[in-house]
Amino acid sequence: MSDLTRLTLDHVHALARRVLRTHGVSEDQAQAIADTITAAERDDCKSHGLFRLPGYVSSVRSGKVTPDAVPQLRELAPAIVQVDGQNGFAPLALQIGCAPLAEKARRHGIAALAVTRIYHFAALWPEVEALAAQGLLALACTAAMSYVAPAGGSKPLYGTNPMAFAWPRAGHPPLVFDQASSASARGEIQLHLRDGAPLPEGWAIDADGRPTTDPAAALAGAQLPFGGYKGAAIALMIELLAGALIGEVFSFQASERDTHDGGPPVGGEFMIAVDPARCVGHGDRQRQLAHAEQLFAEILAQEGTRLPSDRRYAARQRTPTEGITVPQALYEELQHLAGRETS
Amino acid sequence: MSDLTRLTLDHVHALARRVLRTHGVSEDQAQAIADTITAAERDDCKSHGLFRLPGYVSSVRSGKVTPDAVPQLRELAPAIVQVDGQNGFAPLALQIGCAPLAEKARRHGIAALAVTRIYHFAALWPEVEALAAQGLLALACTAAMSYVAPAGGSKPLYGTNPMAFAWPRAGHPPLVFDQASSASARGEIQLHLRDGAPLPEGWAIDADGRPTTDPAAALAGAQLPFGGYKGAAIALMIELLAGALIGEVFSFQASERDTHDGGPPVGGEFMIAVDPARCVGHGDRQRQLAHAEQLFAEILAQEGTRLPSDRRYAARQRTPTEGITVPQALYEELQHLAGRETS
Repeated sequence: MSDLTRLTLDHVHALARRVLRTHGVSEDQAQAIADTITAAERDDCKSHGLFRLPGYVSSVRSGKVTPDAVPQLRELAPAIVQVDGQNGFAPLALQIGCAPLAEKARRHGIAALAVTRIYHFAALWPEVEALAAQGLLALACTAAMSYVAPAGGSKPLYGTNPMAFAWPRAGHPPLVFDQASSASARGEIQLHLRDGAPLPEGWAIDADGRPTTDPAAALAGAQLPFGGYKGAAIALMIELLAGALIGEVFSFQASERDTHDGGPPVGGEFMIAVDPARCVGHGDRQRQLAHAEQLFAEILAQEGTRLPSDRRYAARQRTPTEGITVPQALYEELQHLAGRETS
Repeated sequence: MSDLTRLTLDHVHALARRVLRTHGVSEDQAQAIADTITAAERDDCKSHGLFRLPGYVSSVRSGKVTPDAVPQLRELAPAIVQVDGQNGFAPLALQIGCAPLAEKARRHGIAALAVTRIYHFAALWPEVEALAAQGLLALACTAAMSYVAPAGGSKPLYGTNPMAFAWPRAGHPPLVFDQASSASARGEIQLHLRDGAPLPEGWAIDADGRPTTDPAAALAGAQLPFGGYKGAAIALMIELLAGALIGEVFSFQASERDTHDGGPPVGGEFMIAVDPARCVGHGDRQRQLAHAEQLFAEILAQEGTRLPSDRRYAARQRTPTEGITVPQALYEELQHLAGRETS
């Protein structure tokens, strides 16, 4: 395996910020992206960590993304807030939208956030986890490049369309999941191609619509949704929520428009926040939290189980003191990108 | 195959109502259930049609369900409405809750409905479809008996936990899906047992947690979620939404409490409605609907695809004139139940 460089989380944040600033990304945008990248490295989610920085940079270099975009907040209805990302990256737009979303959820019991005209290159869990850490239930979804075939079909149409969910816990970090609607991540297929390894059954079909375990044929064909037609229905729902509902493009339209510079396509994110305290009668809040813990205890009482977010939280115990590792080649690339002043 | 009796939809409704009334179900409760059963037969969803009536009756006979319950409506927050079903059946409680849910969604942009203390023996699509027919986007979910193992586990914990979604269309009935979080319906395993047929791989594990295709071993073991750990995460989310969030039991608790009389267990349903017109700027509503149609056209342009609700809508074209069929044995059982006056 490649050599690894060890970095502190502070170093990760500073490096990410410096790379972005060097390429003309505004301070606010760069801070928000660096926060997201650092959170991913802290939780050992390498695929959304420093690994993403070259893609952020190339989508600025290509002229696709506005590096100093100032997201615009607007109330569309008493319980609906919109953030127009102004063709900037997602993290700052989400940061700006989550505070009014939380405020509206507390006031009305439930609220939604429509984020449009963003370039999303991060995971969805940071925002839903943060909302749940404030005591709210949160759901988020976003569409992406067109990679996944619809139920019964054979050509790419849907994105890998992730959905994230978070539930607030008393005395524990929130329960969170964040999962693609496709059977596998795009990157996992690329890793199999690099390693010359066959794909598991059920991940993909070739350009003629036949099941394939050949990574190259899969990349030229289409990915499959998880769990057959039911996963496809989830992917379809996410296209509608993060697309038509909020006035944003579908994945197939995002792909058509994209410059294919290695960065993310344009699109939207849709979030819902619910105040659990407003969903039960007065005084039932503590019982509600305790009740959920009974379910988690039942899950964990079965051998072989874990809660969806446990692996991330375990990493979070280690990395603030141990730091994280990054492949030496990537570290050198980032140092190079950080040093290349363009503005 | 068994002999079939042909009935008009009016006859279905009258028969359902009469069976329920004969067993002490109040007029309002009986009408609401008969509406749901007739809608299922009309759309050729046999597993939620007349087939369910004996279960409704037995859960009244056992004393579990209150046959003349009067659901109680309460506003918990500006955008959250609760219906306490008072231990009656689900359809009337849902009917009572959907009108204020729709009104709140139009006013605030998004709203939720928490239905508690109901016995749910129907599909979820009738209510989400009706909301979407009024121009709203709707989501619904409910938990049930404990049949499905959690991710990595081997014992039943979750219900088959269905989720339904509906999107309003211009000039078409809504796009709707309604799908269990389990790989198969419980009833499909029972049908395989009856027919002596092996199960498809991936549906179930035996009592020792080993994959099985033996229907009897599956019923003694646990069903599996659809799509592995991702379907399990959906099932877990639904337990929280239709359980702890709204102050209702989890599936494992519903099973513990149940009298196992052949009817449904107690539980809750959680619904969200969104007014799409409030999620985009003024004047964008027609463009929004037309935009969604572009996605549906792209799906249908691929050979082998259909939209999730198409099969139901095709049946709905036929049954008002052709009527529906019911096995002769079931028809005779229902005639017998209709004639047996108890009140």
